[in-house]
Amino acid sequence: MTFQFERELGGLKEKLLIMAGHAEAGVMQGIKALMDRDDALARRVAAADAVVDQLEIEIDELAIQLLSKAPLATDLRLITVTMKISHDLERVSDESTTIARRCLELSMEPPLKPYVDIPRMAGMASVMLKDALDAFVNRDTAKARAIIPRDKEVDLLNKQMHRELSSFMVENPKNISRCLNLMVISKCLERVADHATNVAEEVVFLYEGRDIRHGGQAAAANGDGRV
Amino acid sequence: MTFQFERELGGLKEKLLIMAGHAEAGVMQGIKALMDRDDALARRVAAADAVVDQLEIEIDELAIQLLSKAPLATDLRLITVTMKISHDLERVSDESTTIARRCLELSMEPPLKPYVDIPRMAGMASVMLKDALDAFVNRDTAKARAIIPRDKEVDLLNKQMHRELSSFMVENPKNISRCLNLMVISKCLERVADHATNVAEEVVFLYEGRDIRHGGQAAAANGDGRV
Repeated sequence: MTFQFERELGGLKEKLLIMAGHAEAGVMQGIKALMDRDDALARRVAAADAVVDQLEIEIDELAIQLLSKAPLATDLRLITVTMKISHDLERVSDESTTIARRCLELSMEPPLKPYVDIPRMAGMASVMLKDALDAFVNRDTAKARAIIPRDKEVDLLNKQMHRELSSFMVENPKNISRCLNLMVISKCLERVADHATNVAEEVVFLYEGRDIRHGGQAAAANGDGRV
Repeated sequence: MTFQFERELGGLKEKLLIMAGHAEAGVMQGIKALMDRDDALARRVAAADAVVDQLEIEIDELAIQLLSKAPLATDLRLITVTMKISHDLERVSDESTTIARRCLELSMEPPLKPYVDIPRMAGMASVMLKDALDAFVNRDTAKARAIIPRDKEVDLLNKQMHRELSSFMVENPKNISRCLNLMVISKCLERVADHATNVAEEVVFLYEGRDIRHGGQAAAANGDGRV
């Protein structure tokens, strides 16, 4: 690997980590805006999505340039995985934007009830995302694999939220619009966890060369019994 | 370009078109299952998702092999775009699976009302997807660009469905679970249209070298005023 190529590859990874920082902050700030009923913050979260969009475009451009110069198969894998992770981060930022927009709608009515499971889901999804990026940086596939089963916990919380909000709707039609907004926010957090899981699977593929997406055979072949 | 490489690249495109055929069929059959209250068909649609998942993995493997042999920058672009389109098609198939699952839940209650807008949305989204793939095959960027504004029409129909279903929920709490299922199906179709739009944007990028995602400057630069 030439020094020049190595430096450019480092630049690509650095840009991805900057993007990851924005995407992670978006989720947490979106939920903060919800908890604090802070419309100004919700608007800032929605506006910040453009920065992440732009980073995705820049990462793709840089990645395609680097592909033509990549000397090794492992470099090709790193570059294509970077493009995929970048796409997941862009979608995380879209979820934050949706959360922020639903916050603004929720602010127009009194609060439905104190939120307990939503900040819990947000915390879980954010930690999954952070861990997936840490696993990418530290080439830690054990950490990446440990993320995957946590996706199910977030799915369960989302289903529980859905049931609880459905019963609030049945109790009183006045709750319906707020419940629908909260269902969307809960689903957004579930999707953030999905994206974190995608990133984790990409990290395993990158460093182990095994494609463990879609619960494939390669996933069953890992020894720790968690996937 | 060597003959061998050219043949392999042809194989990659062919696999993508097979995948596209499955993804398109999934959407239409999912909606047919809904309209006909055909649970057996809904179960087949959900089961068929595994075929599309497997094709995504095969396309990625083949694409990464080809990247290391690609002699030209345009080949690199074709290969990375193929990977992206494949990912969108995999997500389309996920949407069909969700539609099929919601059909099965809807079958457990009497029909809410005759469906009018849902088959209309399904038709629009499927044609967008078909046109985007045709544009890919025929290198027809004008056709690809013409798809992009149609996404807004599907978005509007989804919003209209959401309003209509919300008011049914307010009218009678007995409608709530059916309305929630139909809201999810409507949202799935809206997402299929989003994926078709992504494919169209990828086709423009592939053949014009312009990144028109996220309504970027390059999008504004096209002369037809439609994007």
